[in-house]
Amino acid sequence: MKTLKVIKIGGNIIDNEEALAAFIKKFSTIEGPKVLVHGGGKLATKLASQMNIPVQMNEGRRITDVATLDIITMVYAGKINKTIVAQLQANDCNAIGFSGADGNTIISEKRPIKTIDYGFVGDVIKVNTETLQILLNNHITPVFCAITHDANGQLLNTNADTVASELAIGLSSICNTELYYCFEKNGVLEDVDNEDSVIENINTESYKTLKNNNIIFEGMLPKLDNCFHAINKNVQKVCIGKSDMLFNTNSKHTTITQ
Amino acid sequence: MKTLKVIKIGGNIIDNEEALAAFIKKFSTIEGPKVLVHGGGKLATKLASQMNIPVQMNEGRRITDVATLDIITMVYAGKINKTIVAQLQANDCNAIGFSGADGNTIISEKRPIKTIDYGFVGDVIKVNTETLQILLNNHITPVFCAITHDANGQLLNTNADTVASELAIGLSSICNTELYYCFEKNGVLEDVDNEDSVIENINTESYKTLKNNNIIFEGMLPKLDNCFHAINKNVQKVCIGKSDMLFNTNSKHTTITQ
Repeated sequence: MKTLKVIKIGGNIIDNEEALAAFIKKFSTIEGPKVLVHGGGKLATKLASQMNIPVQMNEGRRITDVATLDIITMVYAGKINKTIVAQLQANDCNAIGFSGADGNTIISEKRPIKTIDYGFVGDVIKVNTETLQILLNNHITPVFCAITHDANGQLLNTNADTVASELAIGLSSICNTELYYCFEKNGVLEDVDNEDSVIENINTESYKTLKNNNIIFEGMLPKLDNCFHAINKNVQKVCIGKSDMLFNTNSKHTTITQ
Repeated sequence: MKTLKVIKIGGNIIDNEEALAAFIKKFSTIEGPKVLVHGGGKLATKLASQMNIPVQMNEGRRITDVATLDIITMVYAGKINKTIVAQLQANDCNAIGFSGADGNTIISEKRPIKTIDYGFVGDVIKVNTETLQILLNNHITPVFCAITHDANGQLLNTNADTVASELAIGLSSICNTELYYCFEKNGVLEDVDNEDSVIENINTESYKTLKNNNIIFEGMLPKLDNCFHAINKNVQKVCIGKSDMLFNTNSKHTTITQ
């Protein structure tokens, strides 16, 4: 198989109807095998509010109780996933929507309770690539929402960046795999207020320095941890930036290397 | 390929957690290729009520406006479909959830406005079997919710009985196909209040008589129309009854013949 691209998109694309349509149009033109992973955007929070389901937090982390898992399953696997699949079909890109339960592709375990009970949150333990390989060989694009399962009938909420990195790692056993994290910035920034300050390359050594100097902090840390996890487990290329990086070779972005 | 079974389940199974778990356990033991089609049950109505979205009716028929389509997509393709898929996996039945947009499997057209505008309701115009054939050949069970697409990016609400019959008709071009409508009664009843009055066989001729004598009426008419549509378009066997008919050869049910 040719080089496979695993591409993750987040709220800045999903929450904006026009941005999503524009992205899907371009995504459909990408040649070769590809997998799309989408986060949830703001729609789940909006629905929870409409249904008067309170957002439960514990020490600053969101808890996925039964009602929240239902909302996430409805919004991520239902509304967002099927909207994306229908639009891909309209652009002649044959796609099938997936959760980790579909095709038994991503098995996770409910996060053990230590100090905090995160509820129905799953940490990935295994990726099964057989079904994905069959589809990719038949020019079908899997579109993943960030829901996995425990193989005992329980769906679990899983971080979308993690779903993308684990899929890329799993699929790198069958072909060369590249991982692209699309988000609202041009890449990892030296100065968070300056879009021109893209750090074009980060390796294990410079990552340590950037963390120590508080240049990389908060929400970027788990994203970069996912990047290094992938690049250290056979994924050939890992990039972070605006989705332009996929379509315009001159578009600045951050590349992660060992 | 061996004989394929297309099995449709409705609210009496979907709305009852224990009944669904029991059905899925048995369904998983069915040998040979199989496709599951599920309706929506009461959950969509419940969610609409929680969100204060009014049920819109016109001359006694439900209208699918944008808000209702969103709810249906969330509940059918999200919550119900993924719950079923996760439970199938737990029973070692490898399954993938489908709407008609996934794999471009079911293309429909928005119902034209004559006297009533039904909104985002789709009438099936084409079933593509290539992707389904690949999955069935690889022992993967497609699980369909009753949502289709117009191939131009629009999802459409489609009757679940129709989805089942159109899938059975489409798939009968690649293998012997049987269609089973599971519902809350033992079959078509001579006397609607007597579960023992199952009419074991209905053919085109006797259907006319049963309609003329008002023995078959109201909600059973579209279901039986779907049955005859299927049996007249190469589906080998069409049955209506409780899901027991799939697992117990002595279980009474109605068989439709030409």
